[in-house]
Amino acid sequence: MVQLPITGKVSMDAIVSSKRFCQVGLVVRDCEKSARSWAGILGVAPPAVMITDDANVSHIEYRGSTTPARAKLAFFELGALQLELIEPVDGPSTWRDFLEAKGEGVHHLAFAVDGMDRVIDNLGQSGGTLEQRGDYTGGRYGYVDMNPTLGLVLELLENMPVDRAPS
Amino acid sequence: MVQLPITGKVSMDAIVSSKRFCQVGLVVRDCEKSARSWAGILGVAPPAVMITDDANVSHIEYRGSTTPARAKLAFFELGALQLELIEPVDGPSTWRDFLEAKGEGVHHLAFAVDGMDRVIDNLGQSGGTLEQRGDYTGGRYGYVDMNPTLGLVLELLENMPVDRAPS
Repeated sequence: MVQLPITGKVSMDAIVSSKRFCQVGLVVRDCEKSARSWAGILGVAPPAVMITDDANVSHIEYRGSTTPARAKLAFFELGALQLELIEPVDGPSTWRDFLEAKGEGVHHLAFAVDGMDRVIDNLGQSGGTLEQRGDYTGGRYGYVDMNPTLGLVLELLENMPVDRAPS
Repeated sequence: MVQLPITGKVSMDAIVSSKRFCQVGLVVRDCEKSARSWAGILGVAPPAVMITDDANVSHIEYRGSTTPARAKLAFFELGALQLELIEPVDGPSTWRDFLEAKGEGVHHLAFAVDGMDRVIDNLGQSGGTLEQRGDYTGGRYGYVDMNPTLGLVLELLENMPVDRAPS
């Protein structure tokens, strides 16, 4: 390979930390079927498939509005990373839009963060748009559409101490 | 979340090892521009952009035929993983087809393997199709289209001892 000249300079203040990259999220049409296929390739037992809580527990918002959207999820450990399979269920969501626009594929890369609202603001100043957010037991997530600059969606995951976690 | 019943059984012989997951490959339109954007988000210096060797060195084959395709590449360390940015250059390739069909996004997840030809055969028996292959200094790669079963392309990377590496 030939090395090309390096151009441009950037701020050295990280908005998300490369060391806290934790998950690859793959949108699929059929979570059970995909989980069996992945299990076969990886030589592991098929994981349990979960379904996300309904909206009155997950407080899910998509493009600023509440949505009944849920998802079936299955998880594999890929080395230090997590592979998340996501089958959109019901209502509008970033997952369903992705599947309809692009078919199955990697929807997001996820980073663990502290102070999610500040991170969302900082990503907003770098061309990102908060697309979807919600709560899960012990924490919350936000999907920031970074397609205009990074070519994909980033997920932010913030786990909270028990006394601060959303119910 | 609610856990659904586990269905189906799979072989426990791994075709690729989850512990050897090593890279996320992202196809982009402009490698330099994307590298600067990623560097800004991650708070690191922009990496060098490389261009792959031409076909008489890389021995690149796409869908069974030689192709003049090359790619501009840039790499970031994401924890234990590598993020590879790929800008298709010239000729037909899996990278160019992906960009034209789906736009920017994650093209592949890569696993280090030993005995690539056997792995390709085993993936073929699990619904995969070898789509592209080539050599790089010290090793070789193969892209296996696993879209029908896994929802994406897997890349196999095999580094070779110096006396076995392709020239």
